[in-house]
Amino acid sequence: MTFAGERPEPGHMQPQPLLIRQLLFSPACYNPEQEIVYRGALRLTYRDLRERVQRLAGALAALGVRRGDTVAVMDWDSHRYLECFFAVPMLGAVLQTVNVRLSPQQILFTLGQTRPTVLLANPDFIPLLDEMGEDIRFIDRVVLMPDEAPVPAPRLPVVGEYEDLLAAAEARFDFPEFPEETIATTFHTTGTTGLPKAVYFSHRQIVLHTLSLIATYATQPGHGRFDRSDVYMPITPMFHVHAWGIPFMATALGVKQVYPGRYEARRLLELQQSEGVTFSHCVPTILKMMLDEPDRTDLTGWKIVIGGAVLTRALAQEAMSRGIDVFCGYGMSETCPLLLISHVDLDQLDDPAEELDLRVMAGKPAILTEVRIVDDQMRDLPADGMARGELVARAPWLTRGYRGNPEASSSLWEGGYLHTGDIATHSPKGYFKIVDRLKDVIKTGGEWISSVDVEDIISMHPQVSECAVIGVPDAKWGERPVALIVPKPGCAPEADAFSALLGEHVSRGQLSRFGIPDRYILVEELQKTSVGKIDKKKLREVYDQSQALFGEEQ
Amino acid sequence: MTFAGERPEPGHMQPQPLLIRQLLFSPACYNPEQEIVYRGALRLTYRDLRERVQRLAGALAALGVRRGDTVAVMDWDSHRYLECFFAVPMLGAVLQTVNVRLSPQQILFTLGQTRPTVLLANPDFIPLLDEMGEDIRFIDRVVLMPDEAPVPAPRLPVVGEYEDLLAAAEARFDFPEFPEETIATTFHTTGTTGLPKAVYFSHRQIVLHTLSLIATYATQPGHGRFDRSDVYMPITPMFHVHAWGIPFMATALGVKQVYPGRYEARRLLELQQSEGVTFSHCVPTILKMMLDEPDRTDLTGWKIVIGGAVLTRALAQEAMSRGIDVFCGYGMSETCPLLLISHVDLDQLDDPAEELDLRVMAGKPAILTEVRIVDDQMRDLPADGMARGELVARAPWLTRGYRGNPEASSSLWEGGYLHTGDIATHSPKGYFKIVDRLKDVIKTGGEWISSVDVEDIISMHPQVSECAVIGVPDAKWGERPVALIVPKPGCAPEADAFSALLGEHVSRGQLSRFGIPDRYILVEELQKTSVGKIDKKKLREVYDQSQALFGEEQ
Repeated sequence: MTFAGERPEPGHMQPQPLLIRQLLFSPACYNPEQEIVYRGALRLTYRDLRERVQRLAGALAALGVRRGDTVAVMDWDSHRYLECFFAVPMLGAVLQTVNVRLSPQQILFTLGQTRPTVLLANPDFIPLLDEMGEDIRFIDRVVLMPDEAPVPAPRLPVVGEYEDLLAAAEARFDFPEFPEETIATTFHTTGTTGLPKAVYFSHRQIVLHTLSLIATYATQPGHGRFDRSDVYMPITPMFHVHAWGIPFMATALGVKQVYPGRYEARRLLELQQSEGVTFSHCVPTILKMMLDEPDRTDLTGWKIVIGGAVLTRALAQEAMSRGIDVFCGYGMSETCPLLLISHVDLDQLDDPAEELDLRVMAGKPAILTEVRIVDDQMRDLPADGMARGELVARAPWLTRGYRGNPEASSSLWEGGYLHTGDIATHSPKGYFKIVDRLKDVIKTGGEWISSVDVEDIISMHPQVSECAVIGVPDAKWGERPVALIVPKPGCAPEADAFSALLGEHVSRGQLSRFGIPDRYILVEELQKTSVGKIDKKKLREVYDQSQALFGEEQ
Repeated sequence: MTFAGERPEPGHMQPQPLLIRQLLFSPACYNPEQEIVYRGALRLTYRDLRERVQRLAGALAALGVRRGDTVAVMDWDSHRYLECFFAVPMLGAVLQTVNVRLSPQQILFTLGQTRPTVLLANPDFIPLLDEMGEDIRFIDRVVLMPDEAPVPAPRLPVVGEYEDLLAAAEARFDFPEFPEETIATTFHTTGTTGLPKAVYFSHRQIVLHTLSLIATYATQPGHGRFDRSDVYMPITPMFHVHAWGIPFMATALGVKQVYPGRYEARRLLELQQSEGVTFSHCVPTILKMMLDEPDRTDLTGWKIVIGGAVLTRALAQEAMSRGIDVFCGYGMSETCPLLLISHVDLDQLDDPAEELDLRVMAGKPAILTEVRIVDDQMRDLPADGMARGELVARAPWLTRGYRGNPEASSSLWEGGYLHTGDIATHSPKGYFKIVDRLKDVIKTGGEWISSVDVEDIISMHPQVSECAVIGVPDAKWGERPVALIVPKPGCAPEADAFSALLGEHVSRGQLSRFGIPDRYILVEELQKTSVGKIDKKKLREVYDQSQALFGEEQ
């Protein structure tokens, strides 16, 4: 007798869909009086949150928001944004978290793609919206979210203010039930090239991502844990991959939450102290800004997850010396973003040097994530800490594609796994380490050489100010590394010195012999992108065009 | 522009199904060398587990097991059972965990309902199977799972021994992908009346239950927590609601696991000590047996969740005085079983009396569970710690019904919520407390009186050996309580004494005045069920039939 469960029996219940509103069930029981604080000034309880989410839903429905419509938000980190995280998807509508750091033209493009029924905007962004002039006229309902009293009427079609609309709405709203595949959120990624691409996440995906976040963070012994006794403050914007999804986790657990408004290092530190914040996340730049503030030296008891850029050993060391439990998360807009967390195993917390190495890695996979390191034929590479391949992943919460972009979606998911475009190694103890971007790695002699590794070694030379290593086509080896070096003022280091330096690392087994560049070229500067990163694409183009200049000299 | 996500875009990935095999992804990365121990003698690693799961799947496939087929298991708690927890569902087949404590006739009924393709049996159960004689002949493939050397050939159609089949199978098996609604497990509940009823759980449900277990246990500060540093040993059988699902949680986290075989108090205590067990679960009877063992007095560092029957304050106190972190879980076969856990809030761990009260309650809802206390019109009752109503629940992992039983399934899910048949209160701080079974509660004067409450008070009388309070039909009040009392030898307590005792509790607001019985009847004994519980159904029948005997006296 087979019993596969595909044909439901009569009288049996249908499977219950996973919906974001379910994340509010247990905190309402656990901690109805727990606080949600905005900028240290406004204090709400979870009981208030539940009521305000219902009022907001009623207000949005009254403005004509229907299932499948988009509601766009432009705000700093606030209790209002948290209310939108729940009310908009719980209505069956799609929350668009607008990246307010994009250029006006890019923002216009992203809103033009989604055509929101309502735009909720902090008045700080009125000048930016006004700059778009007539082009933004497709938005015909703007709700302003001012912190204080009346704001100057903008040229936008304002239909009301947030608090007024909530006050006018009913305290109770009966949220509909709908399929769990209903889209809950959307936002745009910003690559270095091309137009922003829209990723999107369903109710099912947000719920599963939240559960995996909790299961991964809370089960970690020794350090880096999150539980019901923590106090949370985001320092990665809520428009950036839902502040890494942590507001959903914090709310589901009913912990105290602190929303800091626009980030200012001094205020963040004041809030951390006055509200007893124990858990935050940010990019390295903000961590550095906070550490550089003069007034606070002891930051013991603050766990901070770092992502978005490389956390250097030096910055990690500095944060730890100030008492911060600092470690890394790895993911991207496409991955919701949870994939890896650099939690350190208990038995490796004994050795400070090893511990530091592990804290700055990408880490170990979250529960339910399948992470692989593969070659260009999608074959698994050994977990030996050496073999390099692209990091590809599957997890139930990864974006299904880019909206309206079948080509980019197909290549994102080539072979049934999401391609991160990052090159990584996998250690025997299970830690993943990102070593390069796929487009920057140098494929030579059957090996993948990390340009970053070679750059790190060359940078140790005392006469080097800056350097970039790029792969250039080679008939015999596929590609060969070439080093472009900006010497320190008045210096003119010799190629032999670099070969010797790199040779030492080869002999110690830390670098493949294929990684020693064929050529070292001294240059005056390295081309940068608009955000200040070295632009290797441009460097490769310049190198191609100017190769004749360098001729055949060795 | 609407964007509800129902029509997938071209080039986009399909939603990834939730499958039990995903629970093996992260432990394989985290802890491949971690141990799984059987009876202190056999030691495997998670690496071994993964290989043995693949070999077992290959062996079962070779025996003809196909998707939707049932594979039944009869074993004590073992590493083999854990392997079946994964291999059988991962094949797409249904794992039937046979309750070996049922009578041969009941076991025969349950196997007859599922008709397993293969039965995996510990030789300890050969006599039991032989007892079924010709009636069990529909099972034509039995695999024996002996602990030691050869076993006597039974009359059953044995096709091999577990270890031999694993050794003969390939080390690698490519598990298929299938819809997440595919049934993973089934087993039978045993009420006090009628035939056993089969509940069932899908891959999706097991995965979600596991995530909620982890998220609920791991986020608890102060006590009762489970994390990656714990060592787990079940003391509720694996055939009983998957040992409450904890083996799935323990495996997903890659913790050390200890499987004790058949339960013997002394061996359980020895294993706890020698293997460093920190987390277990059991019924009160086993806890009592272990506490009564003479050799071990200090059991500090052992967390034990109690379920299946009421944990008395006295037993909880005794366990705590021996160093055990004891608390309760609430659920049932139909609920997979997670619904509530009596974790105590940090701020209530200061007051020992209050703490003890909370530890013996049903507790607070697990993440994603919606638990309500309702009257017979499904209206919510206030969370005031007093109002009594039936506890009903929704969660994505509750059984969809009873196989082949549409009527019982419909009443289980009446009104869209699963009916537990338990009467509970809900405190302002969010704790649920079970006060009675729905069928035993006395509905009188518009109130629901807990028969258990009245019994507890009457039992305080020094001349009472045992008592039961039942509701009897009453024209005016609907029902009225009647107390059946077994006095201590040589005693003949008066009705007035009971009325006075109960009256004191009424005046202190601890009992409704409707709870004072109309009649106190001294009896020689109280009818019991086969498992030793007072049989109130029988008592009500006897009372009905014998009412003439008691006449109208007051």
